[in-house]
Amino acid sequence: MTTQKNDTNYTIGVDIGGTKMSAVLFDLEKKEIISDYKLSTPIDNFDKFLVMLYALIDPLVEKAKKDKLKIGHIGIGVAGMIDQPTEKNLEGKILKCPNIEILNNQSLGKLIFNKYKINTSLDNDANCFLRAEASLGSAKNTANAIGVTLGTGIGGAISIDNKVYQGVHGSAGEIGHMIIDVVEDTPHTLEEIYHNLTQANPQGLAEEAYEGDKLATKVYEELGHLIGIALANVVNLFDPEVIVIGGGVMQSSDLFMTELKKSLKEEIISPKLKKIKVLPAKLENSGAIGAALLS
Amino acid sequence: MTTQKNDTNYTIGVDIGGTKMSAVLFDLEKKEIISDYKLSTPIDNFDKFLVMLYALIDPLVEKAKKDKLKIGHIGIGVAGMIDQPTEKNLEGKILKCPNIEILNNQSLGKLIFNKYKINTSLDNDANCFLRAEASLGSAKNTANAIGVTLGTGIGGAISIDNKVYQGVHGSAGEIGHMIIDVVEDTPHTLEEIYHNLTQANPQGLAEEAYEGDKLATKVYEELGHLIGIALANVVNLFDPEVIVIGGGVMQSSDLFMTELKKSLKEEIISPKLKKIKVLPAKLENSGAIGAALLS
Repeated sequence: MTTQKNDTNYTIGVDIGGTKMSAVLFDLEKKEIISDYKLSTPIDNFDKFLVMLYALIDPLVEKAKKDKLKIGHIGIGVAGMIDQPTEKNLEGKILKCPNIEILNNQSLGKLIFNKYKINTSLDNDANCFLRAEASLGSAKNTANAIGVTLGTGIGGAISIDNKVYQGVHGSAGEIGHMIIDVVEDTPHTLEEIYHNLTQANPQGLAEEAYEGDKLATKVYEELGHLIGIALANVVNLFDPEVIVIGGGVMQSSDLFMTELKKSLKEEIISPKLKKIKVLPAKLENSGAIGAALLS
Repeated sequence: MTTQKNDTNYTIGVDIGGTKMSAVLFDLEKKEIISDYKLSTPIDNFDKFLVMLYALIDPLVEKAKKDKLKIGHIGIGVAGMIDQPTEKNLEGKILKCPNIEILNNQSLGKLIFNKYKINTSLDNDANCFLRAEASLGSAKNTANAIGVTLGTGIGGAISIDNKVYQGVHGSAGEIGHMIIDVVEDTPHTLEEIYHNLTQANPQGLAEEAYEGDKLATKVYEELGHLIGIALANVVNLFDPEVIVIGGGVMQSSDLFMTELKKSLKEEIISPKLKKIKVLPAKLENSGAIGAALLS
């Protein structure tokens, strides 16, 4: 008889992004990737999406079968709001997925379970990012951390006592949706300001800044200033040990990190908290790893 | 032999406010006040303050002695930032107390312990407020809640899994310090805007509104709008079950509650969370009761 422990020693983690999906076959004991795989994300049609998702997961299931590794769990990370991502929630329903609208209201967890007969959980992608970084990356050995992803949008997550904090309905940690401006009585969230300032193309803007465009450089400094303010708000509420920042835009972190740290420090209230560490993410595939760790 | 349980069945709770201090002798088992007492707060001289604080506590200690009740703990709530308010922290040091500056850097816990030889803990007054309301008041039977006090300033607290959340350094929950406006690049916290709009006299402004002053009425509506936005930010981060609002300004809640609930609902992201309950505080002496429950 195989023990329960061995049964669940291997998991699959999938990160569903707006342009690509990546998946890992993960060894929970050794905490390492056995195999990984990537495909593009179809965003125009849900059936096409499902075909591609299965095409992403199938090779890892095959690989596990070949190596006689029993997969105990499939974890899925998606940039959206999940309906109470608990293990008991077998629906695995996506309430809202702004960047991949075909996923809205889809019970993805149930579909995957029906296909593979493996328990499946869903979680927000920023939660997966922080779970991975807090287990194996920059925030390792810190019980209370804030995670932020700067990509097309701004994702956020919070960990308390070594666990990603989900809140009562599974929607905690929405840092990108924090309103930091109410000019002319219109509330503006951090993510809205981020979209406006970068014209939804942060990579392009970074290139302009590196080519010497002074306006682009200024915009990045302003972004750093505002992200620092939003993070100070979160720090003043959660009082954590560390902030981990990831996402594609961190490749241009030299354009905004000085301003970010400056306004962050200025706006933190507690004298002890002003020394909070701000670290870049460490793992390459944190979204899929964090999903693999969902079990 | 008296059992350990009986030894710690009675506590004293003290709420130190900017104008008055109140204290209760509390029965932890019956969850009720045995005796209470109030005095004004001297704010110009720390020695005078201490004399008055002892004059507040002494009668309750005497009363307990007379009734043969052994006091297991003294809890102190103060509107400021406490240095890691854990039971192990015997210093009980106040890092920052904006409204009673003579308390800055005073190790009040140690002084009270030396005087009465009773273990003493300190906590932020808004934390005490929420602890009391979550144990015995409006937020009873809710594990995850947000507490807000609207008085001279704006206090905030968060409870997670039936415990007031302190954070790593004991400074979590600073809702009043949330920056919600960055007009002309100057960050403005909710409390700053509140001070500006009410000209630090919310009671006076309420009277004007009740006397028919249209500008005062407008200001209160604007306040409700902005407090609702700040609370939506906290809700989007913490995903709690209930918001409890207390403090003297709640006597005029009809002036701002409609606007508060409107903007709160509008700015909450998760569809399920939009139904969050917003309740007025229930207890009269929540600050002192919450301090009595600190043990």
